[in-house]
Amino acid sequence: MNLVLVTPDEIDTLGRVTVQGARATHLTEVLRVSPGQPVRVGLVDGPMGTATVVEAGSAAVTLACVFEAQAPPRPRVDLLLAVPRPKVLRRLWAQLAALGVGRVILTNAERVERNYFDTHVLDPQVYRPLLVEGLQQARDTHVPLVTVHRRFRPLVEDELDTLSPSTLRIVAHPGAAVPVPELAASAAGRRVLLAVGPEGGWNAFELRLLESKGFQQAGMGARTLRTDTACIALLALVHDAIGRS
Amino acid sequence: MNLVLVTPDEIDTLGRVTVQGARATHLTEVLRVSPGQPVRVGLVDGPMGTATVVEAGSAAVTLACVFEAQAPPRPRVDLLLAVPRPKVLRRLWAQLAALGVGRVILTNAERVERNYFDTHVLDPQVYRPLLVEGLQQARDTHVPLVTVHRRFRPLVEDELDTLSPSTLRIVAHPGAAVPVPELAASAAGRRVLLAVGPEGGWNAFELRLLESKGFQQAGMGARTLRTDTACIALLALVHDAIGRS
Repeated sequence: MNLVLVTPDEIDTLGRVTVQGARATHLTEVLRVSPGQPVRVGLVDGPMGTATVVEAGSAAVTLACVFEAQAPPRPRVDLLLAVPRPKVLRRLWAQLAALGVGRVILTNAERVERNYFDTHVLDPQVYRPLLVEGLQQARDTHVPLVTVHRRFRPLVEDELDTLSPSTLRIVAHPGAAVPVPELAASAAGRRVLLAVGPEGGWNAFELRLLESKGFQQAGMGARTLRTDTACIALLALVHDAIGRS
Repeated sequence: MNLVLVTPDEIDTLGRVTVQGARATHLTEVLRVSPGQPVRVGLVDGPMGTATVVEAGSAAVTLACVFEAQAPPRPRVDLLLAVPRPKVLRRLWAQLAALGVGRVILTNAERVERNYFDTHVLDPQVYRPLLVEGLQQARDTHVPLVTVHRRFRPLVEDELDTLSPSTLRIVAHPGAAVPVPELAASAAGRRVLLAVGPEGGWNAFELRLLESKGFQQAGMGARTLRTDTACIALLALVHDAIGRS
């Protein structure tokens, strides 16, 4: 944990917050904080700042926070992801938040198994703490916005323009000739919406529909990666490309 | 599984191999192969090829293999990695093999906990099947070479030149000004040796020693990532940079 994330309702009028549970345990047992010590803090979806430890007990730690004037910029990449296996998705939440994703749009596809939608890893009560864990790791305050869509076609045809407007649209596809970073570098200040298919890939209809809505195919070499590995690799490549172009 | 990996001793003089266990189960239950069907095969550390299913039972599948003349090139990146937490390393093995690593050099560092060396995830009997799983996913035949080093200094001073000779040496370090892909692109045909430190980073002595042996610092933006996320992101960036430069 490289940043303690707090919510606005946790802070009193003097800018003090008392954290308990996992955050308190981490502060006392891993970081071994003592009164007077500075700690990096962040306000969920708001600015980062510095806090001074006021009291550090084993069950609760009280921090006096001073926040910066401005929130960090929201990550410039959104992810359209065919719902992966629950075990894979569980592992992925914190890593997506750590790498930086503005929005995660989870969708059905032909090669997504139906029972993947019935899993508790799509429950905000399960994934939100994992997203927060990733943000605290990477020092960011923006909790990715998450929506789940059981119907691919209405999502792509009707909802995507509202969910993720004015983005460069990239669909990762094995064997595509254009490398992902080369395409991402053409974003020229726009956000990027990156589509990652199910294990086994998008089917021909899904690919055509995505392309009809402005997605361009791009690839990442000859190796076929598992969904979680692919997501991490692709997000790293896109962030690097748009950050340096 | 996008490739069935077999070892030379499994193949008879007619090029036939009978696989059992996980490979047979995957062939019959996931890929649902039947006699006459073609399947991608690979010879461990050797060429890839095509096999025809001869017999497919629930417990064993017999394949007739024809291999290509040449093995695919060995991945051009080696990884010097401070031993991560066992749970993290267990997850990482298959992903490293899938992304492509010629050699994994596991090392001690000040911020590596001593008991990490006593874990069974450093046992070849545990990690080799995980490496093979990653290769079968990504369609590669080169099992990464793995060595474990309990003493950082003799490793870096005396052994690294033999283990990973003539490489461009990069040490990933948070906050370094040069982006990893920019430095990796200067490899100009050489292999790359990428050093990734423990959670908490290399200490000052370790960094100085690495730099005295030719490692150059490079970074990946402001976000601090968990070791496994960082390894995957860095390997993707380095492979992309050396593949396109």
